[in-house]
Amino acid sequence: MTVRRMVVVGGDAAGMSAASRARAFRPPERLRIDAFERGRFTSYSACGIPYWAGGVVDGPDALVARSAEEHRARGIDLRLRHEVVELDVPGQRVRVRDLESGQESRHGFDDLVVATGARPLRPPLPGIDAPGVLGVQTLDDGQRLLDALEGGAKGRRAVVIGAGYIGVEMAEALVRRGYAVTVVERAAQPMSTLDADMGALVRDAMCGMGIEVVTGAAVTGVVTGPGGRAAAVATEEGEYPADVVVLGLGVRPETALAEAAGLPLGESGGLLTDLAMRVRGHENVWAGGDCVEVLDLVSGRTRHIALGTHANKHGQVIGTNIGGGYATFPGVVGTAVSKVCDLEIARTGLLEAQATAVGLRFHTVTIESTSRAGYYPGAAPMTVKMLAERRTGRLLGVQIVGREGAAKRVDVAAVALTARMTVDQMTALDLGYAPPFSPVWDPVLIAARKAAAAVTEGSNRT
Amino acid sequence: MTVRRMVVVGGDAAGMSAASRARAFRPPERLRIDAFERGRFTSYSACGIPYWAGGVVDGPDALVARSAEEHRARGIDLRLRHEVVELDVPGQRVRVRDLESGQESRHGFDDLVVATGARPLRPPLPGIDAPGVLGVQTLDDGQRLLDALEGGAKGRRAVVIGAGYIGVEMAEALVRRGYAVTVVERAAQPMSTLDADMGALVRDAMCGMGIEVVTGAAVTGVVTGPGGRAAAVATEEGEYPADVVVLGLGVRPETALAEAAGLPLGESGGLLTDLAMRVRGHENVWAGGDCVEVLDLVSGRTRHIALGTHANKHGQVIGTNIGGGYATFPGVVGTAVSKVCDLEIARTGLLEAQATAVGLRFHTVTIESTSRAGYYPGAAPMTVKMLAERRTGRLLGVQIVGREGAAKRVDVAAVALTARMTVDQMTALDLGYAPPFSPVWDPVLIAARKAAAAVTEGSNRT
Repeated sequence: MTVRRMVVVGGDAAGMSAASRARAFRPPERLRIDAFERGRFTSYSACGIPYWAGGVVDGPDALVARSAEEHRARGIDLRLRHEVVELDVPGQRVRVRDLESGQESRHGFDDLVVATGARPLRPPLPGIDAPGVLGVQTLDDGQRLLDALEGGAKGRRAVVIGAGYIGVEMAEALVRRGYAVTVVERAAQPMSTLDADMGALVRDAMCGMGIEVVTGAAVTGVVTGPGGRAAAVATEEGEYPADVVVLGLGVRPETALAEAAGLPLGESGGLLTDLAMRVRGHENVWAGGDCVEVLDLVSGRTRHIALGTHANKHGQVIGTNIGGGYATFPGVVGTAVSKVCDLEIARTGLLEAQATAVGLRFHTVTIESTSRAGYYPGAAPMTVKMLAERRTGRLLGVQIVGREGAAKRVDVAAVALTARMTVDQMTALDLGYAPPFSPVWDPVLIAARKAAAAVTEGSNRT
Repeated sequence: MTVRRMVVVGGDAAGMSAASRARAFRPPERLRIDAFERGRFTSYSACGIPYWAGGVVDGPDALVARSAEEHRARGIDLRLRHEVVELDVPGQRVRVRDLESGQESRHGFDDLVVATGARPLRPPLPGIDAPGVLGVQTLDDGQRLLDALEGGAKGRRAVVIGAGYIGVEMAEALVRRGYAVTVVERAAQPMSTLDADMGALVRDAMCGMGIEVVTGAAVTGVVTGPGGRAAAVATEEGEYPADVVVLGLGVRPETALAEAAGLPLGESGGLLTDLAMRVRGHENVWAGGDCVEVLDLVSGRTRHIALGTHANKHGQVIGTNIGGGYATFPGVVGTAVSKVCDLEIARTGLLEAQATAVGLRFHTVTIESTSRAGYYPGAAPMTVKMLAERRTGRLLGVQIVGREGAAKRVDVAAVALTARMTVDQMTALDLGYAPPFSPVWDPVLIAARKAAAAVTEGSNRT
């Protein structure tokens, strides 16, 4: 019996899930697994960093789902601080640099898993690399951030560049730390993962929390002060003083190695795979997690979506297939949930602009409801926006902004999108009802009713 | 233009939704609407009564969604304390008794809506009608209950007969009022809407709340004391002293009038309708709410499920159809959510016994997870049980018992059941993930993975 060799490049969610899953299928005498991670941590929750920064959760150890020792105990030869510097696909080997010693080595593979993740956007602006400008991507970043925040926030100011998920979550963290927080965003509203009308609700709520939200403002640079440290964030309109600057501009796929190896990349620079998470055109090269593009089942296009839950699924699929089982990742519908303090934000499916961009025509409706029966204590307001295709009435997307109970309600729409339901079909959904949990018509059903009426009216007119 | 005449029998959710919806389609000069309600209240939330009893919400007015005056202002001639005593279907008229004056009158109809609701089970046991034995069905019942609970609970004992939804919700209410509470249930576990293994979790949690749970105990009667008042609940094993006895034995369709009129009833005594909510075989008679049986989309059988959210949907469908539009109620999947103090209880689809009874064979899995990322504050444990059909892997049912965030998670399974998804398809669902809202694998997905593995293993064995 020959021993097959699996090499994993990147030791976070996708890579280590793939390794663990393959190991569950095949013992070490049948499958050798080498995994290389350039950082100091493995299998960690990057999504937890804003909560660590805010002092809500402990870190960094609590954010590590499985330690390097645990992986090694299961027969996965994981080496931290080892960076893969070349993928030799035709030669079926990788070149690895030990970042401590500087020594290089080569490792052959039968199956290669590319799980190199994403890197935060850091636009080439003056001062962007100054001390005091901090990213939020790895646990090492998180530790630097914590160090920068230590020592008390009294009278200190923080500026967050970018008002996407990471930006708003970091705004909450900095508010919790006692900082005076300004968020600077280029777009007209925060949360460009929502339509602008829904983003405006987020803006209003953030302002109500004492967060200064500056929109329509392109950052031109970071102004440095004594010792070259960041002192302010400059825009065309003005400067915003900052003792700490946090970058929340989103991420791009980390695919330089893959590109150099000639592996196929999509429009946003992510690796392209088939449904089994095999890199297109390569029988024995697999990719998953934040470095790939995934099929958006609603638009029919591939997209880059960096999210730990997808990375874990990809890893499961890759590991199952390498282990000799069979699994596929059919795609996503674009679900994302987040919060700023007690404001919950959720979306799934397509925004208006995304739907238009792929040739869809649609009706939009927006409704207000509550999380519980109106008479039940704690009933919190919730705004639901829904897009339905013209003529067919197929659900295209849902966005929800509200308080307690708003975010996870989007899951109903995520399943409905996956099942390609029409909004009319959704009006009959048998969702859980009891006064502490929902009005007698769940907010998602109220939106579906209004959307179904819009589709019917639209059909009657044409 | 002739004026059509719509008569509504029963002025709660289904009846008044039908009336309101029909009125939205047709003005009074085209449609006359007469509605008769034998009680003092209309369009109220019976589901809210346990929370009113527990002092969590105000009542009774806060539980009324729309008052009789509001209905009348919209051109719906609603008369309270008027009981329909005969449905003359061939003669297209109803006989109505004014419960205040005793006078009777007749009213003709073109369309008849039967929305007579349900009546609580009150087994013919000695003492069951004694003062101090209270039901929880109408707002009038609720007021009697409130009156009985007034005056302080110090040292007082309450016994709830039946540990279904109403029983456990009333147990919470009585605990909140300061009563020492005993729940007596004939079955082996509370919540017979769950499998016994899941019911046992509810029992443990209730005991932890200081509620005495007596199961496997058939009530033989209510023992009366001085003045003929209820003093104890007797079972074959022993007596449980009670200052207050609450009946929580569930309800049956209130279809005596319909039966007398020769309308078709199902096995559980509910009216049988078509998909448009027309009573089978009757072009101009409609029925909805707690007096009908609904199609269970998972088992393919009709069932009686008394739930306000279904009643509202039925009313919408009936009103739309009478108003000249087109709508159907395709059926239910059996979703129900409830809570006892901070314990959340949810189910959808079929229980093991229900699945077996309709000829299905299946795998069951049970998993433990948490409501949030394990490291996030407030992460609460949750048990998810899932049934998947053998061979096909089709989802058949889900039961969830947990704390915060458990109940409404069942909605994901409700939509998946409606879409007839397999548990394997469910493993790829794009559900919202962020540490405050879910572990990286949502508990429902963890259950789906385990169920999918069970289906695969089962297929490999056979």
